Amino acid sequence: MTESPILCSIDLDAPGKQVGQLQVPRSSNMAGWSNQYVPIVSIAGGDGPTAVVLGGVHGDEPEGQIAALNLLRRLEPAEVHGRLIVIPCVSMDASLEYSRLWPSGANMNRSFPGSPDGSPDEQLAHFLSTEVFPRSEIVVDMHSGGRTGLCVPWSEMHWVDDPEQRRQMVDGMYAWNADWCCVYIDIAGSGLLVGEAERQGKIVVSTELGGGGFVTAEIHRLSISGLENVLRHFGVIEGEAVTRADLGKPEQTLLMATERDNYLLAPESGLFETFVDLGQHVSVGEPLGQMHFLERPDRAPEVIESLTDGIVCSVRAIATTDQGDNVVVVAREASRSELD
Amino acid sequence: MTESPILCSIDLDAPGKQVGQLQVPRSSNMAGWSNQYVPIVSIAGGDGPTAVVLGGVHGDEPEGQIAALNLLRRLEPAEVHGRLIVIPCVSMDASLEYSRLWPSGANMNRSFPGSPDGSPDEQLAHFLSTEVFPRSEIVVDMHSGGRTGLCVPWSEMHWVDDPEQRRQMVDGMYAWNADWCCVYIDIAGSGLLVGEAERQGKIVVSTELGGGGFVTAEIHRLSISGLENVLRHFGVIEGEAVTRADLGKPEQTLLMATERDNYLLAPESGLFETFVDLGQHVSVGEPLGQMHFLERPDRAPEVIESLTDGIVCSVRAIATTDQGDNVVVVAREASRSELD
Amino acid sequence: MTESPILCSIDLDAPGKQVGQLQVPRSSNMAGWSNQYVPIVSIAGGDGPTAVVLGGVHGDEPEGQIAALNLLRRLEPAEVHGRLIVIPCVSMDASLEYSRLWPSGANMNRSFPGSPDGSPDEQLAHFLSTEVFPRSEIVVDMHSGGRTGLCVPWSEMHWVDDPEQRRQMVDGMYAWNADWCCVYIDIAGSGLLVGEAERQGKIVVSTELGGGGFVTAEIHRLSISGLENVLRHFGVIEGEAVTRADLGKPEQTLLMATERDNYLLAPESGLFETFVDLGQHVSVGEPLGQMHFLERPDRAPEVIESLTDGIVCSVRAIATTDQGDNVVVVAREASRSELD
Amino acid sequence: MTESPILCSIDLDAPGKQVGQLQVPRSSNMAGWSNQYVPIVSIAGGDGPTAVVLGGVHGDEPEGQIAALNLLRRLEPAEVHGRLIVIPCVSMDASLEYSRLWPSGANMNRSFPGSPDGSPDEQLAHFLSTEVFPRSEIVVDMHSGGRTGLCVPWSEMHWVDDPEQRRQMVDGMYAWNADWCCVYIDIAGSGLLVGEAERQGKIVVSTELGGGGFVTAEIHRLSISGLENVLRHFGVIEGEAVTRADLGKPEQTLLMATERDNYLLAPESGLFETFVDLGQHVSVGEPLGQMHFLERPDRAPEVIESLTDGIVCSVRAIATTDQGDNVVVVAREASRSELD
Amino acid sequence: MTESPILCSIDLDAPGKQVGQLQVPRSSNMAGWSNQYVPIVSIAGGDGPTAVVLGGVHGDEPEGQIAALNLLRRLEPAEVHGRLIVIPCVSMDASLEYSRLWPSGANMNRSFPGSPDGSPDEQLAHFLSTEVFPRSEIVVDMHSGGRTGLCVPWSEMHWVDDPEQRRQMVDGMYAWNADWCCVYIDIAGSGLLVGEAERQGKIVVSTELGGGGFVTAEIHRLSISGLENVLRHFGVIEGEAVTRADLGKPEQTLLMATERDNYLLAPESGLFETFVDLGQHVSVGEPLGQMHFLERPDRAPEVIESLTDGIVCSVRAIATTDQGDNVVVVAREASRSELD
Amino acid sequence: MTESPILCSIDLDAPGKQVGQLQVPRSSNMAGWSNQYVPIVSIAGGDGPTAVVLGGVHGDEPEGQIAALNLLRRLEPAEVHGRLIVIPCVSMDASLEYSRLWPSGANMNRSFPGSPDGSPDEQLAHFLSTEVFPRSEIVVDMHSGGRTGLCVPWSEMHWVDDPEQRRQMVDGMYAWNADWCCVYIDIAGSGLLVGEAERQGKIVVSTELGGGGFVTAEIHRLSISGLENVLRHFGVIEGEAVTRADLGKPEQTLLMATERDNYLLAPESGLFETFVDLGQHVSVGEPLGQMHFLERPDRAPEVIESLTDGIVCSVRAIATTDQGDNVVVVAREASRSELD
Repeated sequence: MTESPILCSIDLDAPGKQVGQLQVPRSSNMAGWSNQYVPIVSIAGGDGPTAVVLGGVHGDEPEGQIAALNLLRRLEPAEVHGRLIVIPCVSMDASLEYSRLWPSGANMNRSFPGSPDGSPDEQLAHFLSTEVFPRSEIVVDMHSGGRTGLCVPWSEMHWVDDPEQRRQMVDGMYAWNADWCCVYIDIAGSGLLVGEAERQGKIVVSTELGGGGFVTAEIHRLSISGLENVLRHFGVIEGEAVTRADLGKPEQTLLMATERDNYLLAPESGLFETFVDLGQHVSVGEPLGQMHFLERPDRAPEVIESLTDGIVCSVRAIATTDQGDNVVVVAREASRSELD
Repeated sequence: MTESPILCSIDLDAPGKQVGQLQVPRSSNMAGWSNQYVPIVSIAGGDGPTAVVLGGVHGDEPEGQIAALNLLRRLEPAEVHGRLIVIPCVSMDASLEYSRLWPSGANMNRSFPGSPDGSPDEQLAHFLSTEVFPRSEIVVDMHSGGRTGLCVPWSEMHWVDDPEQRRQMVDGMYAWNADWCCVYIDIAGSGLLVGEAERQGKIVVSTELGGGGFVTAEIHRLSISGLENVLRHFGVIEGEAVTRADLGKPEQTLLMATERDNYLLAPESGLFETFVDLGQHVSVGEPLGQMHFLERPDRAPEVIESLTDGIVCSVRAIATTDQGDNVVVVAREASRSELD
Repeated sequence: MTESPILCSIDLDAPGKQVGQLQVPRSSNMAGWSNQYVPIVSIAGGDGPTAVVLGGVHGDEPEGQIAALNLLRRLEPAEVHGRLIVIPCVSMDASLEYSRLWPSGANMNRSFPGSPDGSPDEQLAHFLSTEVFPRSEIVVDMHSGGRTGLCVPWSEMHWVDDPEQRRQMVDGMYAWNADWCCVYIDIAGSGLLVGEAERQGKIVVSTELGGGGFVTAEIHRLSISGLENVLRHFGVIEGEAVTRADLGKPEQTLLMATERDNYLLAPESGLFETFVDLGQHVSVGEPLGQMHFLERPDRAPEVIESLTDGIVCSVRAIATTDQGDNVVVVAREASRSELD
Repeated sequence: MTESPILCSIDLDAPGKQVGQLQVPRSSNMAGWSNQYVPIVSIAGGDGPTAVVLGGVHGDEPEGQIAALNLLRRLEPAEVHGRLIVIPCVSMDASLEYSRLWPSGANMNRSFPGSPDGSPDEQLAHFLSTEVFPRSEIVVDMHSGGRTGLCVPWSEMHWVDDPEQRRQMVDGMYAWNADWCCVYIDIAGSGLLVGEAERQGKIVVSTELGGGGFVTAEIHRLSISGLENVLRHFGVIEGEAVTRADLGKPEQTLLMATERDNYLLAPESGLFETFVDLGQHVSVGEPLGQMHFLERPDRAPEVIESLTDGIVCSVRAIATTDQGDNVVVVAREASRSELD
Repeated sequence: MTESPILCSIDLDAPGKQVGQLQVPRSSNMAGWSNQYVPIVSIAGGDGPTAVVLGGVHGDEPEGQIAALNLLRRLEPAEVHGRLIVIPCVSMDASLEYSRLWPSGANMNRSFPGSPDGSPDEQLAHFLSTEVFPRSEIVVDMHSGGRTGLCVPWSEMHWVDDPEQRRQMVDGMYAWNADWCCVYIDIAGSGLLVGEAERQGKIVVSTELGGGGFVTAEIHRLSISGLENVLRHFGVIEGEAVTRADLGKPEQTLLMATERDNYLLAPESGLFETFVDLGQHVSVGEPLGQMHFLERPDRAPEVIESLTDGIVCSVRAIATTDQGDNVVVVAREASRSELD
Repeated sequence: MTESPILCSIDLDAPGKQVGQLQVPRSSNMAGWSNQYVPIVSIAGGDGPTAVVLGGVHGDEPEGQIAALNLLRRLEPAEVHGRLIVIPCVSMDASLEYSRLWPSGANMNRSFPGSPDGSPDEQLAHFLSTEVFPRSEIVVDMHSGGRTGLCVPWSEMHWVDDPEQRRQMVDGMYAWNADWCCVYIDIAGSGLLVGEAERQGKIVVSTELGGGGFVTAEIHRLSISGLENVLRHFGVIEGEAVTRADLGKPEQTLLMATERDNYLLAPESGLFETFVDLGQHVSVGEPLGQMHFLERPDRAPEVIESLTDGIVCSVRAIATTDQGDNVVVVAREASRSELD
């Protein structure tokens, strides 16, 4: 079977502003004939490129959901040069539970490229992969560290091999104007949304806008300003993109977290105490934190030491920790020219 | 792998009456070596055609289960011209929980054609698709609206392209002698049992024998009388089939619910109040019901209007409603000649 | 401790129309400091008596919730002679799950008179018992058979010993103008809301407005018309109360279900098939239904016979049945004079 | 019954350092005869007063657990003038799940004064109330905002009527040397640990050391330094207590959050966006945040305005919000002399 | 409230054999009006004493349930000198789940003496305490180690102070003719069934008939033969009681497990490996087993040593072990004269 | 995708003793970036063959886990002629819950050969199938009957067609020196670990070391002695393998359980009582046990009779039984020459 079972209630190729929904077939004990609605908004105003803006791939990352909601409500077609397709919350039920995963246990960010006859997350991934991404030049996927990860707010990218695609993605990453940019690898599985968009050659811009499950007003401001600046940068919405220099700010710090040694994992289950805070410089062998064991308060904690020199860009937000959970990310500071 | 792991304890090709079970491999925390039993009865008495009779594909639809149980207990081979294979309850554990889905979350009516090395529902679907349906000419799958859907009791069919198959299915549909017949489409996914049987060219007769999770004695009588009349119509069991005219009743009303606009979905989660009852004629734009919002008793309800002229043939049985749940089906009245 | 921890956001003794909520302290994993809101509306317009109108004590009984919502939205103080206190949904979280019980497992209708330092349901029961009921002369508690019980729609009462209280309750019961009235006993526990109101000497009017979990438009009309007529009868809202004779209808049928033999319980777990429908007359020893056993389709069903002569006024709505579940209620027809 | 079923494996009245556990009877499906262990450490070294130090009353508040573990491991009797009784984690199973409540649903901080024949949380509360608190002069109960509440880190107290007790508690609160002190009320129930200790006339010192479920290294440093300074202030451990002046810091800001209007609750369920950050001054009527409604992205958000002038001292950490959840606390700045 | 809400369908004071049930009020989401049935059988045939025989107080202890079922089916009034009241399975739903506790989490053996307006387990305990025990002279409560505890099969008793009651209980304990007798204490809570029966001065005979959740045919034989011999010993059923000497067996070994040191608890959560088997003699300080730590296979196991000399009479059956779980019971061998 | 996402932290081809872990990508609500650790130990000391030793494929079978842990801790490279790869617990989370299945519901022993982009159990199966088994000549997979099955302790094998592979497997099976050897078939599904290893031509040695969920010290001794003797037999570790004759024991009894009739399944759900014990000889038609029905204590039990002559080698350990659960295995005694 190759046709998507998902119905889109709006015409993604029509001009103007349309508010509708993706209708994902659903059959539950509480509704025999039903469709899960995933809101989708299209705002098309001219001949510019198309950007897809996605929030809420993970339900415990509200930054992007709220930035997208605020943007879609106030933006009118006259302000859009090209086309904007906004899905403010991809994982509706996960957002309702404020959880990373869907109630089914599915991680939407491990479901790509999806399948038209798979589980609902795979059906939705397939629709995005086959109906939405192909209509766009730019894919913006807003993430944060979620409930369990504190991150310095950064915009991010995978290393992609195509030089032109990579150049555009670097530009997009820098256009967010956060204090930090980061090149990262996946240490907890495959099937990511951005991976599929990259495979299709799209200019992918992603973020980790803080995290820990909470959002400050300051982060909300960075989310919306960065999102709009990226869209201006690529000519999707009206207005001039600005640089950090324009704003009187120092250049972004570029972080490389492309080795497995950048990601420290807990050696044993216990209660994690961090010794370091976000943005702090650390050296190889420096203690980053320790695991306490509540059942044996007299047992000496297990100390975790850094495997590299670098900057602490992520710290586990939750003290209760299982063996193998990432507790600290130490990234290497790099210069932008490394990405050429 | 192509062989089914399911064992059938009876010989489906032997004459006489046999009561046995399908044994579906199961390994749980409460039983390392185990088989789920799905009762199956074969009653073969002559040279006529074979009909498969299925109940309980959904666990909250007892009408068919009880009709099948009563039939299989009292029927003897001498009364059967051909062969009857009865599976009174396909979804045993769902019936035990009185739920549409299996405890695993599987919707048995989305599992076809199934797979011999998939999950247990897929294994069972595969066995039916490869071992049971091919032995038959007629497949009778008894459904109702289940816990969440009130339906006027109807017999039903999909539109199939083959004219001869369609003609026979129309005849079978009418032979149930319910007040209503309905041609419908699937709006909540694929993988239906009847779809696979249709694909195999079988004469498929299905029903929605009321619903709402409850069954009246009147519906029980319609279930067994309709089932037996269909089986007589096709010469599977002895006796003459009767028509509604024979019974002094007016002809069946034929309903067409073959457009998505026939199926009204809730625009927002809330408490649904119907304005219309089963069998009522409504017009385009007519209010069918409204959504209340308990958290804000002062908020005006959201009214749902009909998108077509027609007859109300299904109303959501449960007031608590999620966005996207089907709340009303408005079908178009048609004449039997449309099905030729 | 004797003071309620519940805050009422409106002044129940002030004139005019106020929409507010009861705030029940709540501390959960998703909110350390929180209050469960239970909407409450007061509409006071004159010197007449006070009626308390309650819906949604059980979450799977939406009739009263919707009647109360519709009433409270349209009613203005000028139409109220006395005072109306409306709590459209006592059990908010149960309504959200469409379940009889609270998610905690509490049956709100077994929590009276409650306690200020008990569980939240007991706190809410205590607030109603000490702050709401004492302000009223009339308590209207709208129920139905809920998901599991089909009832002929009736208004109902317990037998109370005080003749004047009983006389007023009989009048209130008849003022609903349903086809049926019923005097009942409690066979599944104590702690009922109406029991506490009766103990305080209030005129208690209650109902079983159908049931089975579903509501027809016809039942919605009966719910609101009956509620308004009762309020008019007691002079709480303007307008003249009408009788069934005024409406050209025959007198209500009075049912007595005051003996344990009126309530038939399932002798063994299985799948229940009813032989009788609502309103049907039955005799002692008459088969009312039977239990099927899915694991053993060849086992003869267990027949349940009536223990009394009478009218079937309630039938279990769900086929899957546990030993000890009530499957049929057979009530004795009586004349109104028995209640003097 | 008046005797506690809980066994303490160490002699709380013996000198020296002892590491043991409270043994709370437990009988589960995985262990018929069992005791839940709650670690307890006693370090007694002289004639000074006794302080009880408690962490982990809520499982999603690790600050106090880790400060207590670090303190108890390094402290020796020679450094203690009086006696220190440390229970680093009162709610062991909640800490394992990183949840506010026990797996049973009990909120340990609503279980006091407890009961010897109640549920395990009540048994433990009773043991603390009858065997531990009476042995002490000072009770230190370390909390934070937990998973759902971001707080400026503060030390705190209830207003108590006894002037001498209040004076000592004010001194203890200031001795933590956090930037903020706060006098608060309970808006989500009764039965708090500190309430029982206050009722016994103890000097109670409590905190909200940040929150949001995460802990920075900076907060860990404040937790241990504050705890030790308080213990020094009361002469329980050796060393001189210091003041913020000694540390070259400005005086603590005193916050009064003693009115219900200080606590803003969500008017409807939705996705909360804060407009304000911790420490920010706001005025009556100033928008503090707004609720978004994901199902209806086009619906205007519901704005929440401040009911008082003051300082934002707590913001809900989780965007997904139920009606009635506390979203912001705006406290009034006050001077220390108000507490005399 | 002092009257039990529980109805007994048979007359416990009538002669002859009656099979009925206790009806415990139940109101669930699947049945609004319902009663939990607990089977009860009375067999009265003469002037002898009354014995109450109870099985299945814990759902994972089937020995007593099956012995009681076999006994009640074959025994006729003519074989009973006095009266036998048999409740073969007190905890029906726990038996269905094969779990120690009720699905509600209640431990039926911690619910005594119960309460008529408590939870269902407390209501049932109250009925037994007030309606059943007072009718009897002898109470036989059959237990085993259940899923988590392997025990040498023994009959058992608490030490009771009344010499005559104690003498009779010793005789009853010995009359079971198991290889072992045991005097024990409660280390995991109070509220036991036997405690209430002892308080009422009844002759209480209890057992731990093996355990580990499984039952061998040999244990089934011991269960029924012991039960019958005890009933013969007290003159409740016909026939001569026999002694072990009569059977050519050596005298029972009497075990005293009356000190907390007899019960070894796991010092830390992990995987328990026993070094000793049932019936083995051990000495103080002898290693009994060790805890392994799967996350750290290189960590040395924690060895658990005996605190007393004695005989191993119980070993934890489940390797996965939480801190505080009982892993071994080492009892002291004693002579019967100690019990005088 | 063909590459495994699993990282092995040690070099399986390096000499010496290494303790590390398999890192299986995991993304949960409690850890966005995480890896499940599965401990793995390599001990390589010479030119001999490689054996893989696996425990804990099922979480309720601790025998193999503990034997493997004890072996890996004490064994040094000097004692190993070839290479030993030990995974003491394949199903870590199942072991933590002491359950057969993973918390996800996966049966690790139905997941082979696995898939690199399937669920975590399939990823782990794929890693074993592609990275671990190919490095070995011998695969030792230690099982027992688990919680639900009592087995006479035996070593076992599937019949494989290749004579040389079969000969070596027979030798390995006999080298365990248990009292029993067994040739068995799979009646509850496919996808077994040993099946994949056999398909690769490995010498597979497996066991059912007792079961019932419990382990005696005697069984622990058999587990480690058998495991070491097998490893010596194949020249993997130093020392001479011994035979039962060397130990003064009679030859192993060989059991054939290769027909479906050897496996008796429960005909109906109920409470199972065994009439037979392990090792007992039975005849066709002999009653093996019976099912009791607690709801109807007066109903005659359903007797289960043997379908073959043979020896009882497995009995269901849990009385509560579902229809279709295996209750007894009766195997045929055979002579070793049958396996040639």
